[in-house]
Amino acid sequence: MDSTIDHLRLIRTESVGPLTYRRLIERFSTAANAIDALPELSRAGGRAAAPRIPSRGEAERELAALQKRGAKLLLLGQPDYPAFLADTPNAPPALAVLGDVKLLASRAIGIVGARNASANGMRVAQNLAAEIAPHLTVVSGLARGIDAAAHNGALVTGRTVAVIAGGLDVPYPPEHETLQKQIAETGAVVAESPLGTAPMAKHFPKRNRIIAGLVLGLVVIEAAPRSGSLLTARLANEAGRELFAVPGSPLDPRCHGSNDLIRQGAHLTERAADIFANLPDHPALTGLARDPLFRHPRDGFAETPLRAPEPETDAATLRTARAKIPTLIGPDPVQVDEIARRCQLSTAAVAAVLLELELAGRVETLPGNRVALTATA
Amino acid sequence: MDSTIDHLRLIRTESVGPLTYRRLIERFSTAANAIDALPELSRAGGRAAAPRIPSRGEAERELAALQKRGAKLLLLGQPDYPAFLADTPNAPPALAVLGDVKLLASRAIGIVGARNASANGMRVAQNLAAEIAPHLTVVSGLARGIDAAAHNGALVTGRTVAVIAGGLDVPYPPEHETLQKQIAETGAVVAESPLGTAPMAKHFPKRNRIIAGLVLGLVVIEAAPRSGSLLTARLANEAGRELFAVPGSPLDPRCHGSNDLIRQGAHLTERAADIFANLPDHPALTGLARDPLFRHPRDGFAETPLRAPEPETDAATLRTARAKIPTLIGPDPVQVDEIARRCQLSTAAVAAVLLELELAGRVETLPGNRVALTATA
Repeated sequence: MDSTIDHLRLIRTESVGPLTYRRLIERFSTAANAIDALPELSRAGGRAAAPRIPSRGEAERELAALQKRGAKLLLLGQPDYPAFLADTPNAPPALAVLGDVKLLASRAIGIVGARNASANGMRVAQNLAAEIAPHLTVVSGLARGIDAAAHNGALVTGRTVAVIAGGLDVPYPPEHETLQKQIAETGAVVAESPLGTAPMAKHFPKRNRIIAGLVLGLVVIEAAPRSGSLLTARLANEAGRELFAVPGSPLDPRCHGSNDLIRQGAHLTERAADIFANLPDHPALTGLARDPLFRHPRDGFAETPLRAPEPETDAATLRTARAKIPTLIGPDPVQVDEIARRCQLSTAAVAAVLLELELAGRVETLPGNRVALTATA
Repeated sequence: MDSTIDHLRLIRTESVGPLTYRRLIERFSTAANAIDALPELSRAGGRAAAPRIPSRGEAERELAALQKRGAKLLLLGQPDYPAFLADTPNAPPALAVLGDVKLLASRAIGIVGARNASANGMRVAQNLAAEIAPHLTVVSGLARGIDAAAHNGALVTGRTVAVIAGGLDVPYPPEHETLQKQIAETGAVVAESPLGTAPMAKHFPKRNRIIAGLVLGLVVIEAAPRSGSLLTARLANEAGRELFAVPGSPLDPRCHGSNDLIRQGAHLTERAADIFANLPDHPALTGLARDPLFRHPRDGFAETPLRAPEPETDAATLRTARAKIPTLIGPDPVQVDEIARRCQLSTAAVAAVLLELELAGRVETLPGNRVALTATA
């Protein structure tokens, strides 16, 4: 319990994202040690004020509030944390779950698509989900359009998981409050954001990566180019999930993105049999990787296994690294390897300084072992 | 001219189909020799009456009637016969053409699909054809629905070829008479059937193989399972043509066949760029060959190059072959190789007897080096 409280304090600390959290635990072994080290690391990164770390009391109150609502907190690294999700590079360190926690460990299919979906698109989503749900869990994002149709279809014949962008107590969109309650009763509702969080734009891509991480395969129905659903497809592909897409008329712009997925190698999907016939037992090691949409290297995965502690870096090297590295990072993401090559310092030294810069809020770590200046820096 | 008349007489002879025609020319070198040999071959095949061979006068009158209509007769083996079509195993020995004969030698795309197409499907066909026609010739079958939309789209921006099932003087469907005239004025109308032929069910698959043979690639729009358009796609695939299909909603049965083509490897096609980007300079040597739909071996192509004359078979062997072979052929198509293996006779002996049986109207030769009892036998 003490450990849970410490983990929650670290997770809720400002400027500690999922990747930084993972690095801190790798480096300091326990959350308590990491919390102790935070102020100094942040100062070394160039930030005058120490980052705001929630108190024990605050963390305890969050846990109590979750329990009062009947929700459970799953922490990355604990046995009940969904295994496939844990294997993704930026898995959420904590998940609040309302409903059946075991469902998150079941074999699952994600269904996502346009919020402004056509009636036909929603019918396809509902039919597919109803066909899938007796056999596999259907995961979606509780959004309007395709998401809601998928949840509704799955509720009729089986179980479904809704991953939401805000806190568990902030149903969004508001008209899906009843649907969310129904899902929690027989399935599960999952939130990375703390209670009370009203969903903002930045929360939706985070929600999408959880959907991608929970499933063996993702079905995309009616996704326009550059839509959130395509982003989810890209995340799913990067995580080695099987991709499925429902074809649609070239005259409907809502189908251009999903048709394009098929062009790139996603399985053309008309019925559940198309999914069952192409579903692996485990996520694959490589995605489609055929197209610029999917061109990001999967080296993000290289970060996943917990690494051996890095050797200590001497003070002189650290000073050099602290001077050089910030000048090498701009608003465009750059590979960490590239930084190490340019500044001619050890990987350990670069990693140590990047962690300081992250904690100071000056640098953002991105999947694919890349970093960038934070938008506000 | 004499040679043309002889060829036409042989081509119009009852029980001489495209494959038999090719074999006769291979074996007897000239049409005149083949005509002389026909009665005896047919008798040896077990038919009492000699096959009806049109007279010189009849052939001359057919040629004159074509000329009077402004049409030209192209014979397989002549320089103006379209080269890609000539390379297909059962290319029509004669084609009547109204319009620009040279257009048949141009780089072309076929567009085919449902007669009862949706308004959207026809719009896609028309748009695609209009995009293609400035660059490549658009070939279709003058049918209702997708075919007519493709011709109409192509007429606006470029040139189009209509391959029809009946004779050049029998517009079908009747309401496309004007369209056929328009196409003949700037493009070309092609018929394998003699003048005066009213199209019957059996003519449409023959028409389809000509479309498949003339084009570098075939686009399928709205094709239900087991539709004629899918048959054309299969023929095109067997001939090594590139396959394209326009995706559609799983809720529309007219899209199931075309979606299935994409599943099997046809290029998902939303706009002309999808075609241009995937168009070879020449037909490929192998088709998709991924699925039962396309499982027929392409050994039909082994028949295409003109073979060296077969060695003469002695009379005793021929007698044995004539006794054995008919018992090995049923209404289900069987491979010629299989027959040779079963009766333990030389390929030359088997080929000689099969030719006799074909000319006697007892056996039908099919693409893929297969034979079957004729339906009426």
